[in-house]
Order: sequence, then C-alpha cells, then structure tokens
Amino acid sequence: MISSGILSGMRVVELSAFVAAPLGGMTLAQMGADVIRIDRPQGGLDYRRWPVTKDNTSLFWAGLNKSKRSVAIDIAKPEGRELAQALISADGDDAGMLLTNFPARGWLSYEELSKRRADLIQLTIQGDRHGGSAVDYTLNPAIGLPMLTGPQGYEGVVNHVLPAWDLITGQMAAVGLLAAERHRSRKGEGQHVKLPLEDVALAVMGHLGFIAEAELGVERERCGNDLFGAFGRDFLTADNERVMVVGLSEKQWQSLVNACDIAEQIKQLAANLGVNLDLEGERFKAREGIASLVGPWIKARPFADVAKAFDANGVCWGRYQSVSQMVKIDDSCSEKNPMFNKVEQAGVGTILSPSIPLNFGSGRDSAKPAPVLGAHTESVLCDVLGLSSAEYGRYYDSGIVAGPAS
Amino acid sequence: MISSGILSGMRVVELSAFVAAPLGGMTLAQMGADVIRIDRPQGGLDYRRWPVTKDNTSLFWAGLNKSKRSVAIDIAKPEGRELAQALISADGDDAGMLLTNFPARGWLSYEELSKRRADLIQLTIQGDRHGGSAVDYTLNPAIGLPMLTGPQGYEGVVNHVLPAWDLITGQMAAVGLLAAERHRSRKGEGQHVKLPLEDVALAVMGHLGFIAEAELGVERERCGNDLFGAFGRDFLTADNERVMVVGLSEKQWQSLVNACDIAEQIKQLAANLGVNLDLEGERFKAREGIASLVGPWIKARPFADVAKAFDANGVCWGRYQSVSQMVKIDDSCSEKNPMFNKVEQAGVGTILSPSIPLNFGSGRDSAKPAPVLGAHTESVLCDVLGLSSAEYGRYYDSGIVAGPAS
Repeated sequence: MISSGILSGMRVVELSAFVAAPLGGMTLAQMGADVIRIDRPQGGLDYRRWPVTKDNTSLFWAGLNKSKRSVAIDIAKPEGRELAQALISADGDDAGMLLTNFPARGWLSYEELSKRRADLIQLTIQGDRHGGSAVDYTLNPAIGLPMLTGPQGYEGVVNHVLPAWDLITGQMAAVGLLAAERHRSRKGEGQHVKLPLEDVALAVMGHLGFIAEAELGVERERCGNDLFGAFGRDFLTADNERVMVVGLSEKQWQSLVNACDIAEQIKQLAANLGVNLDLEGERFKAREGIASLVGPWIKARPFADVAKAFDANGVCWGRYQSVSQMVKIDDSCSEKNPMFNKVEQAGVGTILSPSIPLNFGSGRDSAKPAPVLGAHTESVLCDVLGLSSAEYGRYYDSGIVAGPAS
Repeated sequence: MISSGILSGMRVVELSAFVAAPLGGMTLAQMGADVIRIDRPQGGLDYRRWPVTKDNTSLFWAGLNKSKRSVAIDIAKPEGRELAQALISADGDDAGMLLTNFPARGWLSYEELSKRRADLIQLTIQGDRHGGSAVDYTLNPAIGLPMLTGPQGYEGVVNHVLPAWDLITGQMAAVGLLAAERHRSRKGEGQHVKLPLEDVALAVMGHLGFIAEAELGVERERCGNDLFGAFGRDFLTADNERVMVVGLSEKQWQSLVNACDIAEQIKQLAANLGVNLDLEGERFKAREGIASLVGPWIKARPFADVAKAFDANGVCWGRYQSVSQMVKIDDSCSEKNPMFNKVEQAGVGTILSPSIPLNFGSGRDSAKPAPVLGAHTESVLCDVLGLSSAEYGRYYDSGIVAGPAS
C-alpha cells in the first residue's frame, strides 16, 4: 500500500471518523505518505455511514480511506492505548505525526503523547475553539447561508448537501501538518496544531466579504440561482435541458452577448435603465432585463445548438445533470480522465475511483482501494513497533487487536 | 507585511484572480510566507468583485488578499513580463514558487520560466484537465448536487451560494505547493503541478461515495434539509426560532431521545415499523416517524428552553441565524474569538478580519489587511530584484509599473 508519491517516506497516524480528518489523511496518503488509520475492532463511528451497499458496506468509508493502512486496536483497553501511543510516537525523522478529530485529552493529550516523543506533531480537528462538538450539519445553520440559498422568495432555509465545511477543513488539516512538518525539519520543534471546524467556516465568511458586508449594515437578499454581483443564471433550452450561463468578466460577458446576437438590444436596455453594462455590478442590477433577452434565445433552440453557439463564442457555461447522468455520459467522470481508475473494493466490487486532483510533474499514483478494516494490524505492529509473531499473537488472542474483518 | 509565522522565509509569487488561487496564496501568507501578488495597474479581474462598498471598493478582494504584498506591473508589455519573470525566478532557497490561475502558456509556461530557474515550482489552477476554462458556477451544475439540494418535492435546481469547489481547490493549491517544496528541499527538483477545478469536484464526488452509489444503480433522491443516512432535520420552536438537530452517532441519538424524553414512544415506533433504531440507516428510513415525535416537543417550547435541555443532554444541534445576526450576536464571530481582530482596511474602514483557523502551538499572527493595489511595487522591485531608485523611476515613468492606487 505504501506508494512512490511525492510524500514518500512520511508517516502519519490517524485516529478519526467522518469527513474532515479522514479526508486530510487520505490527501497525504494519495501523495505517497504512509497513513495508518487506527480503529476499534468493530470499526469507527463512520464505518457504516451512508451511502451503503445492500450488504451494509459503506461506500462513504471506502471513499474516504483509500490508500491508507488499517490497524484494529481496542483503544478502550489500557494495553490498546499503550499500543496506539507507541505507534504515534514511533521513531523515524518522517514519522511522529498524528491527525485526529478525537478529543485531545487523557491518553490522547499532547502533554501525554509528547512525553514519548518531544518533537511530535499533533493536529486536532475540533468542533469549536473551546473543544466543544460541532458538525457540518449543525454549524452551517449558524453561518447564515441556508437563509440565502434556494429559490428567490422562498421563505424557509436550505441546507447544503455537500459538507463543504468538512471538506475545506480536511484540506486545511493537510496544510497544517505539512507546514508543521516543514518547521520541524528546520527547527527540530514539534507542536500541537488545533483546527476548529467552526473557525474554518467563520474565516471563509470573512474572506468572501460576508462579514464586512453585514458590518456595513447590508443584509444580502436571496437571489435564487443568480450569480451575485454580476450576470449569471440558469435557463431551459427548447428540449428542456437546463444550462447555467455566466458573464462575470468582461470577456465572458461579451462572449454571451455575441453568442446570443443581442448587442443592439443590450445597448438599448442599458440606455433605458441608465446603466453601464460594461460594469459587472450593473449587470447584476439589470439581471432581469438581461435574462429577458438571453432566456428567449436559449429557449428557442435545442441544447445541441445552444452548446455549439456557446462554444464557438467562448461563452462560460455549464449543463445541469444528475449524478447518474454524470457517471453514465460524462467523459470527465470515467477512465478517460487519468485521475480515475477502476479499483476492486472489498465488499463492493469494481468501482471507479479518483486519485488526487493534484497532478504533479513527477506524476501521481493511481487510486488504490480502502483497506479492509484491520488488514494491516499485524504488519504494522511487527514492522513499526518490532513486535514478534508471538507477541502479536498474545495481543490478538486477548482481543486487544484484531486482524482483517471478514 | 512579512510576518513571523510558521512559513516565515518562504516566498511565493501569485498571478491570480477570484477565489481559489488568491485563497491558496493567502493561506500561505497567513502562515508567514511572503506572498507577492502581481496585478496589472488597473487591478485584476476580481478587483471590483462584489460585495463592494458604496464607493465600489471590493470587500471580496480585501478579504482574499490579506497579508500579501501587492505589485502593479503592466504584464501586457514585454518589459512588464520580463519583470514578472524575474520576480518569479528570483534567487533564494525558499523562493522560486509561482501560484497562478492564468493560462500556463507563452511567457507564463513552465518551459519558459524554468529556463530562468531550473528548480522552479509552479502550481497552475485550471478549469478542466485540458486547460479549458470552467468556474465554480458553471461546473457545479454538472456535478449533480443542484438536483439534490432544496425542499423535498421541489422540481427545479438549487445552486450553492458558497463557492465550495473554489474553496476546496484553494486549500489544495496550498497543499500542492507545500508538498512540492518539501520534495524540492530534499531532492532539489522543481516541477509544474496542475490542479483542475473540475477534477477537485469529481474527486470529492468519488470520495463521498456519490459516484459508486450511481454505479450501483441507485439514483439518490432529494431529501430536503434532512441528514442523509441517519436522523437530522430542522424544526421550529414555540417562538419561531429554527434549530437543526442531528442523531448520527449512537451517542448523539441517545442524547436527543433523552432530551425530548421520548424513549418509550421511540421504542413503540420501532416496534410498529419493524426497524432497529439503534442503526443510523434505519433512523433515516423512519425519519418521518421520528420527526413526528421530536417536532412537537420542540414546537411546544421557547428557544431558550430547547437550548437548555439540548445542552444539558449533550444533543448535537445548531441554530439558524442570518449573517447579520451572526455578526451582531455571536461571540464566535467577534474579537472574543482570538482568530479575529479589527483591521483598518483602506477604502473600507475598520472591519472584523479573520486570521487563519490553524492555531499552531507556536502561535499565529493576527489578521492583517489586504494591501493597497501596487503598495509594494517599489519595495519589492528594489529589494528582490535589486533595482536602483533610478531604474525603478524609469519603469514607473514609462507606465510599465505603478505605485499605490489612490
């Protein structure tokens, strides 16, 4: 399972569940790090997370733990915790890194762990900055976006389906570990890095200007599927395909006007409204008028003709499709895209699996399956900790560790 | 502007616009890297991106370029390109890094740039893997999620308001640069790393199991604000506050049942439906029945009582609030949260600004404002490239570079 990727040689121990921490670890694993995920023998809290197969094998777990090694240890028992601590603090210049979203207290506190290895790097993903629990689904409501999402005029709230905060946090966890490892390689110092999910979301709301806008007294209104601050909207074609068109930059805007052959009407619209449509913000203000010109042009043509005209003019546009359509008809979501390959995933069968989107000049490994739970317990304990077969057998027989789940 | 953070000493040149590339650069800058953003003298494509102040100063630009240095060079002119190339390839073990979402061709191709510095690291964010253009707003429709977002039974599509793919890509850009720099520091090799936005989205859809689910022939249905695969839903309190409650893990589920004091009714519901509600997936199947018990309990109580009971029982829950409410009443979005501090942002005033959510054991810098466009043109060209004042003056007078925008 250890790969030849750009992080080859690095070793990270992961104690995790759900999205953010497993994704952070997998990001490093798909770049060649040896990421060892430790789970209790019955599997972690995410071991049965939906979507699942008919036999209750989790496609979610399989997706977020690719390229890792899996070690099953009963960390409810003192001997199990001792083994986990030994793995976390094991020797090696490129080892001594822990990624977790478990509470960093007791046996898993930095204070305890760094007694065993002074230059340990621990990155702990927390719910909030006080160490309290929060998940994407309960945090997102407090961020304000569910009140801005959904059809214009809709009175309710709309949750996002993509756990965006978790996903951003997962990548930031990889950033934090790499930055801390760079620092350690130069200064010899380890450290405990904390990454609160809530702070990730709040920081993004600041970065995108939402917080400053509210401080200036502006309450942004729901604008449906429109692109805020410029022209962008979805439209139906004559054959009922739906497309999204965007005129954000000046070039994109001119392309759209040219493709729809509405330069004259746009000039008249601008004159009537007294606005300058060369400015992106004025396009947002005049979006209903613009849509009344673009919409009929699209509605009068079948999708194939719209696509042809848009592409010929360099329009920035996209087509709505379901996940199933994407999987069935989109070349980008197939082995024609070198990021994907088919893997044999235990309990699932052959599935299309993505490697990492970062395409290094020195190449990237193909996607590898997620391990069977506990598949590497014996090899990791013997190789990394130097346990003999007899010693491993003793742990195994007493139920402190487990081998591959059947 | 150069900080004392964990990446102190690293220098990255950025040629960028919009979200992903500027966020990637800012992530490094907020960890102490010297990130030099080069723009044309009139500002890049994102210089007026909404939200804006009444005077058309972009809060978006200010938010995504904090802690950077700004250099204004007319890269449409050959002499301007020559200066930009010189900055990109300038000496220094920790320099020689370029982050861009501009097309990597012509003067900005890796082939050309690496002639000046053989160990250059270039990370190029692309729309798709072929180098074609795509933006979050046109890519998202093709990913399938707009058909799964929004109220159950809704027939249309719902775009996300948060540019999630851009945000994930921005963090991955930082990951890619740090991984490539680690490799270079060990092996002496630079490289061109490509990161297509489309591949980021496709990879996530694979990681979360959406692609495998579709391959297995399952077309997931819209489930409104419900948490897919377990119990989670939003409810109104007696005083019309809205809360999200989640029972994903067993502990969360038991906490909710205890808080609402519905253990008996849940047992009967399970018996009536013939399901085992200890399993998360069965809770999803029985969600209407569960909601019919949880909902009335919440609806019968004012928010304050609900919050008290939930907290006392350790329920995983959240409160819906608007961005304005968050800014006005939420301590997490204030200077009480050490991630935030007030900064004086030119053209805007004093605003609450986030530093990086990664809280290193060795500390983190406070948030710094975004630079005035061109504020560092002279200092960067003189310090990094060794230009004399007279040489700088010649470039300035001929309009090839510009000083701070007024």
